[in-house]
Amino acid sequence: MDDLQVGVLGGGQLGRMFVEAAHCLNIKVSVLDAANAPAKQINALIEHVEGSFARAADVLALSQKCDILTVEIEHVDTKVLEEISEREPLKVQPSWQTIRIIQDKYRQKEHLIRNGIPTTESIPFGTASPQGLKEIADRLGYPFMLKSRTEAYDGRGNYPVRSVSEIEKAIATLKDRPLYVERWADFQMELAVMVVKTSSAASISSWETSTQSFPVAETVHEDSICKLTYTPARGVSKTVKSQAQELARKAVSAFEGRGVFGVEMFLLQDSSLLINEIAPRPHNSGHYTIEACHMSQYEAHLRAILPNLSNTIIPGATSLLTPNTNAIMLNVLGGPTPTSHLVVARAALTIPGAKIHLYGKAEGRPGRKMGHITLIAPTMQEAQEKIQPLINIVDAIRIHRSEGPTTSAETILTTAHTISTTDSSRAPLKAKPLIGITMGSDSDLPTLKPGVQILDDFRIPYEVTITSAHRTPDRMLQYARTASSRGLKVIIAAAGGAAHLPGMIASSTSLPVIGVPIKGKTLDGMDSLLSIVQMPRGVPVATVAIDNSVNAALLAVRVLGVEDEDVRARVEGYMMEMQKEVVAKAGVLEERGWKEYSGGSK
Amino acid sequence: MDDLQVGVLGGGQLGRMFVEAAHCLNIKVSVLDAANAPAKQINALIEHVEGSFARAADVLALSQKCDILTVEIEHVDTKVLEEISEREPLKVQPSWQTIRIIQDKYRQKEHLIRNGIPTTESIPFGTASPQGLKEIADRLGYPFMLKSRTEAYDGRGNYPVRSVSEIEKAIATLKDRPLYVERWADFQMELAVMVVKTSSAASISSWETSTQSFPVAETVHEDSICKLTYTPARGVSKTVKSQAQELARKAVSAFEGRGVFGVEMFLLQDSSLLINEIAPRPHNSGHYTIEACHMSQYEAHLRAILPNLSNTIIPGATSLLTPNTNAIMLNVLGGPTPTSHLVVARAALTIPGAKIHLYGKAEGRPGRKMGHITLIAPTMQEAQEKIQPLINIVDAIRIHRSEGPTTSAETILTTAHTISTTDSSRAPLKAKPLIGITMGSDSDLPTLKPGVQILDDFRIPYEVTITSAHRTPDRMLQYARTASSRGLKVIIAAAGGAAHLPGMIASSTSLPVIGVPIKGKTLDGMDSLLSIVQMPRGVPVATVAIDNSVNAALLAVRVLGVEDEDVRARVEGYMMEMQKEVVAKAGVLEERGWKEYSGGSK
Repeated sequence: MDDLQVGVLGGGQLGRMFVEAAHCLNIKVSVLDAANAPAKQINALIEHVEGSFARAADVLALSQKCDILTVEIEHVDTKVLEEISEREPLKVQPSWQTIRIIQDKYRQKEHLIRNGIPTTESIPFGTASPQGLKEIADRLGYPFMLKSRTEAYDGRGNYPVRSVSEIEKAIATLKDRPLYVERWADFQMELAVMVVKTSSAASISSWETSTQSFPVAETVHEDSICKLTYTPARGVSKTVKSQAQELARKAVSAFEGRGVFGVEMFLLQDSSLLINEIAPRPHNSGHYTIEACHMSQYEAHLRAILPNLSNTIIPGATSLLTPNTNAIMLNVLGGPTPTSHLVVARAALTIPGAKIHLYGKAEGRPGRKMGHITLIAPTMQEAQEKIQPLINIVDAIRIHRSEGPTTSAETILTTAHTISTTDSSRAPLKAKPLIGITMGSDSDLPTLKPGVQILDDFRIPYEVTITSAHRTPDRMLQYARTASSRGLKVIIAAAGGAAHLPGMIASSTSLPVIGVPIKGKTLDGMDSLLSIVQMPRGVPVATVAIDNSVNAALLAVRVLGVEDEDVRARVEGYMMEMQKEVVAKAGVLEERGWKEYSGGSK
Repeated sequence: MDDLQVGVLGGGQLGRMFVEAAHCLNIKVSVLDAANAPAKQINALIEHVEGSFARAADVLALSQKCDILTVEIEHVDTKVLEEISEREPLKVQPSWQTIRIIQDKYRQKEHLIRNGIPTTESIPFGTASPQGLKEIADRLGYPFMLKSRTEAYDGRGNYPVRSVSEIEKAIATLKDRPLYVERWADFQMELAVMVVKTSSAASISSWETSTQSFPVAETVHEDSICKLTYTPARGVSKTVKSQAQELARKAVSAFEGRGVFGVEMFLLQDSSLLINEIAPRPHNSGHYTIEACHMSQYEAHLRAILPNLSNTIIPGATSLLTPNTNAIMLNVLGGPTPTSHLVVARAALTIPGAKIHLYGKAEGRPGRKMGHITLIAPTMQEAQEKIQPLINIVDAIRIHRSEGPTTSAETILTTAHTISTTDSSRAPLKAKPLIGITMGSDSDLPTLKPGVQILDDFRIPYEVTITSAHRTPDRMLQYARTASSRGLKVIIAAAGGAAHLPGMIASSTSLPVIGVPIKGKTLDGMDSLLSIVQMPRGVPVATVAIDNSVNAALLAVRVLGVEDEDVRARVEGYMMEMQKEVVAKAGVLEERGWKEYSGGSK
């Protein structure tokens, strides 16, 4: 596909998945790392270099074999990358400057701030004196983060300082490292966006043409290590997702060079976003892209760094496979024994939709990244239900991880079972309502009951409430406006008399609204019917017969059946049953004769 | 994941993708084939065996290294596999008997017939005398297939005989091969189902527990080589799909051993199914499973042959990722020059959703399988539109494939462009209608026009027709009953007076039906409204205001928007526009005063 040879500094799991992507395009990748590193195991095509990405001579040896150099880890020798780039400009992607800036977390933050990108407030802390740190803390408040500027990842080099009494211990823990202090971000959620940068220059103003972004993932950390990612991020509005993608793309466009960047962000309580940190390479939070997106982050990185392919990353190339692709990624870390992590992988084998990635590392050690599992399902609800047993095992491994090599798989599974039965947050989630039923008055409820029963019969999750158009107008509009973002797909609204509720709700949502006219004391329901059905052009209400909540429910089910074959099959079954029932009655009537027939009471 | 080492006879593309699956589970696979075979290129973990799968000594050398042996091609030395199995039962999967039966296509057919599996009628033809063949032909009729019993694949060893005059040439072409004659199957479509068999014994009666199947793919062959697969098969009813899966699973359960089997079938004109042939291994028609299914056929094969993992293939494990995953697989064959096939791959780089698999073969030769492309999209329509440019290039390569090494990429692209513009079958397909609009009488059309215009504005494909409940009752029921299988999602039905059409249509489809009451000469439309809205319990019609086809269309669009975010965004845009329009009118009215205001004509 491309005759250029690629060299990658580092051959861990990221390098391994990068090599997988390269194989599909028949592109040769040479790896610099220890013998038998994960990435080397799967590539017999080419001679690799044995050594360290932090040693200049080894990097030079790799460079001699390759046309393009890239990294799977940023803690590399950038001095030698700088020298190589002086002789061969653009050979190192992303550029050595970018890698050097990003290696030092404080410089990374400075760079972002200089470019107008919102990020967590950070203060360098050179002296390592407790007094100096106390002064900074007085300014920022507690808690705050004490962090190593360099060689910090997966929680190593971070210390959350919760009160003045922890300062001395924090300094002692991180001693001999260059440090800085970071203001605590009171976030509601952590988000991550993988960005692919396809032109070499740093230029924020051209972010729209120089970058593409993958979907927004929600990340969950434990012990400062990524534990889970959810894509699309759960319960995050479209607006915030667009803002997150735009911010991530702008941040990445401030760096030189081409390739994929992992951008980690905080979504704060006020819905604003702050960049936490950036990785100049594929990232744990982008593993899900392998199964869930048109192109994986690894293929995106490969294409971006190759000068002849970087222009193939066009809008849409990084999208989810289909609009209802939902992905959860779960990291599989080492546990008490060298094989404890395999307990998770074995359990995943029996969960349809769970895709296992083991990295080929020799032995599990507590907390070591041994693999990951990506679960794909058509709804996030289903994905969460399916992955919960695996999360239970991961948590059980963590509970036992310091207990040493006598911990058996059975012990882990027993603990997983125990926590699954004692911790109610691990129980199967209640299905999110798909149908919202609302009525103008509680006096409408008896009429609605047969319809609600239909939804139960069809096993469709729903919610029932009261919103009166005339007595609670604000509540009604609020209900309508939030319906779609709360996950509702159809609204059933019942009202009588001057029955404004269904039409008013339809005016404030883009969901289909079904109106049930309730018969009042006068006019035989005609007032309700006409108030609901005679909507002006532009705002439709799907009106059913007076008092016929059953048909409203059946109509709602038919709407869900448009895209859900299972639901449609249930509707077909219901129609068959109805037919059989009538035919059976006809049989009885014909057999007994009309005089003896006891059914059909008036 | 499993400490057993797997040996695979053959290291072509199937072996390569098998090794890819094994890497994800950290299972070691040793390959017997020539040095640098595609499968070996991506596996540096283990020593492979250089040699041939048809040479006993080489197979024995592989066997010595491995705990389990399997094949990626059936044309192997089964004598040595038999010997190995005598010493180590169940080491060869699927069993040597299965491989031996399947190697000989006539024996394969005999085996199926003996087990009651419908397959194409076949007659052995030992003598190679033209007279003998003529006698058989008189019995079967022309055309018929003359086939080699052994070493036949990708069209090699097949000769379609269309008339008596071709008999001598057919025999001459296939001379020195053991031959048989096959009755011509007059099929409407070829289907393929990948089946995974998870228990070792041959037992048709236990097919439900011993096998699982992947979805039904439609296969398209050219020059007797698989060209395209479409999954799910297009326009095939659920019933036929279930029958195809059941037949494939029964056929496979008649063979000994575990593993994946590719079952190719003919769907005949009368909708019955015949087995064409079976492969005892992953198959070209199952490539799509890598991206489209929860588990690929390669992972399924690996798990099935490993005794400790074969029980992990549970129902659902082989399903599509989501209900709206649609996959098209396109084979990339070698062309006139060693790199012509890369023209297809390069074009695929710029099509979001197209996943490229190149096999690492050194040089393209005309017709050699060099790679494949799988395109995933949420609808088959979208998948077809996206892949058409690649099919054009594949066809252009075929046109030029005998023209030798001076054929440039430009020549191929020019031809692709020419055929795309001159062959109307290659034009973008007309989108399949999602909304069916029907009316009781053509006099309703003027009332419906504003609604149809709305669908145009929203870019929703629709169809419009007339079906009168009272004048064409059969046609009306036929319309309703076929609506869902024709791809319609919502029906809009308009009628006036004793307006039975919407309700009758709703009685015969499980789709949502929207009713538009048309105002007649008397009763101001009240007759139509009540005839449509007052449906009995069990059969809902979503009724809109009298004559308000605009609201019917908008309601239909809202229903489509339930699962399609793009459509929903368009509805929201429309609502914003409406709001702006009213506010603008208010501004004009307030500015000019009510006396001067010229809008709002009565």
